[in-house]
Amino acid sequence: MDLIDIIETKKQGGELSKEQIRYFAMAAADENSLDYQLSALLMAIRLKGMTARETAMLSLEMANTGDVLVPNIDGITVDKHSTGGVGDTTSLALVPLVASCGGKVIKMSGRGLGHTGGTIDKLEAIPGMKVEIPEDIFINIVKEIGCCIVGQSKNLVPADKRLYALRDVTATVDSVPLIASSIMSKKLAGGADAIVLDVKFGSGALMKTVDESIELAKAMVDIGIKNGRETVAFITSMQEPLGSHVGNALEVKDAIDLLSGRTKGPLLEVSLILGEQMLILSKLADDENTARQMLLYALSSGRGLDKFKQMIRAQGGDDSVCDDVSLLPKAKLTHVVKANKNGYIHTVDTQRIGEASRMLGAGRRSKDDELDLAAGLIMHRRIGDKVNIGDSICTLYYNPGKDPVSAEEYILSAVNIDSEEVKAPRLVYAKITKRGTHIYED
Amino acid sequence: MDLIDIIETKKQGGELSKEQIRYFAMAAADENSLDYQLSALLMAIRLKGMTARETAMLSLEMANTGDVLVPNIDGITVDKHSTGGVGDTTSLALVPLVASCGGKVIKMSGRGLGHTGGTIDKLEAIPGMKVEIPEDIFINIVKEIGCCIVGQSKNLVPADKRLYALRDVTATVDSVPLIASSIMSKKLAGGADAIVLDVKFGSGALMKTVDESIELAKAMVDIGIKNGRETVAFITSMQEPLGSHVGNALEVKDAIDLLSGRTKGPLLEVSLILGEQMLILSKLADDENTARQMLLYALSSGRGLDKFKQMIRAQGGDDSVCDDVSLLPKAKLTHVVKANKNGYIHTVDTQRIGEASRMLGAGRRSKDDELDLAAGLIMHRRIGDKVNIGDSICTLYYNPGKDPVSAEEYILSAVNIDSEEVKAPRLVYAKITKRGTHIYED
Repeated sequence: MDLIDIIETKKQGGELSKEQIRYFAMAAADENSLDYQLSALLMAIRLKGMTARETAMLSLEMANTGDVLVPNIDGITVDKHSTGGVGDTTSLALVPLVASCGGKVIKMSGRGLGHTGGTIDKLEAIPGMKVEIPEDIFINIVKEIGCCIVGQSKNLVPADKRLYALRDVTATVDSVPLIASSIMSKKLAGGADAIVLDVKFGSGALMKTVDESIELAKAMVDIGIKNGRETVAFITSMQEPLGSHVGNALEVKDAIDLLSGRTKGPLLEVSLILGEQMLILSKLADDENTARQMLLYALSSGRGLDKFKQMIRAQGGDDSVCDDVSLLPKAKLTHVVKANKNGYIHTVDTQRIGEASRMLGAGRRSKDDELDLAAGLIMHRRIGDKVNIGDSICTLYYNPGKDPVSAEEYILSAVNIDSEEVKAPRLVYAKITKRGTHIYED
Repeated sequence: MDLIDIIETKKQGGELSKEQIRYFAMAAADENSLDYQLSALLMAIRLKGMTARETAMLSLEMANTGDVLVPNIDGITVDKHSTGGVGDTTSLALVPLVASCGGKVIKMSGRGLGHTGGTIDKLEAIPGMKVEIPEDIFINIVKEIGCCIVGQSKNLVPADKRLYALRDVTATVDSVPLIASSIMSKKLAGGADAIVLDVKFGSGALMKTVDESIELAKAMVDIGIKNGRETVAFITSMQEPLGSHVGNALEVKDAIDLLSGRTKGPLLEVSLILGEQMLILSKLADDENTARQMLLYALSSGRGLDKFKQMIRAQGGDDSVCDDVSLLPKAKLTHVVKANKNGYIHTVDTQRIGEASRMLGAGRRSKDDELDLAAGLIMHRRIGDKVNIGDSICTLYYNPGKDPVSAEEYILSAVNIDSEEVKAPRLVYAKITKRGTHIYED
């Protein structure tokens, strides 16, 4: 067997065998294999597709090219993944919240290459917090307190690292089987028994439409189920930032505010929807209503915030930030962006909002860029809100050396104000389980 | 502009602009450009195709990445190209034959990587013959005697060298626009005003069916016309070896036999058909009948053979081989392959015949393999011939150290004998000009 035969099969539109898939995954992880053959195969997959069977096998074989976590934890372990967006702070709040209800949440996260850092970068805004933790200690923390969030081990799915980098420079990012197997290979290697996925669509997400995001979600649920993991996905809106806070320390603050009962709205609602499912898959609740009651009690009783403090302490961090968010890194300067038009906010170019946040220092352009953990922005208005000229729509947080004027221009060009009244968009569009797709209707 | 944008355009099925095509050709010739981006683009082209306009531009832009010959010869210069096959000795005979009728034939040829060497390797079977000749001397020989055959200059279409090597290892060989632009870029750089193409189909050719070969021929004629070169193509059979002789010195002998009036049959017939068109495009004949009379006279009068002698002398070779073919390299050993079945020859796996010839030493497996110029085989029977058990169907020519038994097995498995009577296949199937495709009917 060699890669040329495998490329040939896929080029003709054929289905790859288990052996061919394994060979491909191993070649992707083998530094001696040839980039130009891998990239030709990636383009053939992009243009000819992969069956659900191929995609499920590819995810597992990719996972097996590196370290695979075997948690050995009593009960059902659960993981949560979002395809990413702007102001998406759900993981930070949800992991301790579900653990405070009895869940065993094991979560490995990446660093971000985008408008803000990833979950791991955000956690580092908490003084003293350690995210590079050896596997056995990671597992022990979960056993003891029910949750832990760590950085991905260096040898997590090496096949994906190679393919991800190649796809980025060969215009083969936009392939559902390749996106799905990239994400799910890491979830399979992460070792959780159950996985809840949040697939975003809209101006701030990789998938621009509901249909595209449903296609991706179906592929990922299918991969999970075919590999023996209970998997459920939700399609949620990224037509505007999910939470109002965008930036690393700012998002930690938003998560603490949520766990303290101060943050409401879409960020809370999406957290509850995902959390319900995590409790149901963990067999800690029989249905959504019961699960929601458990989550709301954890919030109102302060047990969720307590769990977050426990997790911070277990990971070496200073949990006093939970009682005094002013201890988080703070930017020296602020600038308020004001509406230059009367009317209603119709659409938000979420990617541009993210770009503005990156310009202020909150995100990376290349792997080696330093983050300014304090930088970012807070949106004061959402789609459907009425604004008058001079109303503040956003506050920028930055340190000397950054240019708030360009960021302001980005914000103003991203927020589209029109005279007609308009409704806030729906937040959750569909739920995908092994039994099928449920579309939420008004 | 960068390659990612170009890959993206082609991946979406779009047409590349002139600037994008130029960038692609220059990147292919630039050793600093990235193989994995080129191979992703090649796969996108293989799967999404190219328009006639794109293919014509690509051929010209590829040609312009290296040396382009500007002959400065009075009258119309003509070139001839065959897509290759087994026992195809037409070039060796046709180039001097057309020159002896007044044509100005400039031909650059490659070395072979297949069952025998290329035209250039074959010429080296003539003692003293030089094929690496500086451009100005090459042109002077054509001016003086009307023809010359030389090896391709090292800097001929560097973009093609890179892409050809990449296609070979990424399963992207079988793309009509890529095959057509690879061949035609070299013809455009070769500088002739008019080009006659012989596109082969059948068991010994890259294209297996008439339809595929017509598609390729149309693409190549279109490239020629769009770039201001009169171009005509014929679709001819490679369902069995064209000439009976397969091997380097053996094919030189076949060419000399043809020019001497000793070789008849398909090799002569294809040579006449191509030669007619070369004379017509050179404006030396008005129609096929006149052109054929000129060619037949050149044969019967010995002028064609004389021209070959002149060409050999001009290129430093010993022209006495033309009067005494026994002066050509000769193999020490022969082995006669005999029919093991009564009946009629129905089909011939031409590629296996070529493979047998390569096993005897006539062809290369890799670039650095040494050829045995004396090795090869002579087929004694053609499709439609009746054979009885024990009739000789082929003679193998080889030197000590080679294994005639394996070659014999290849020959026997390649020649399919059945009891039913069968007709010899048609030789010329179609003619493609700028005015359209003419299919020959019985």
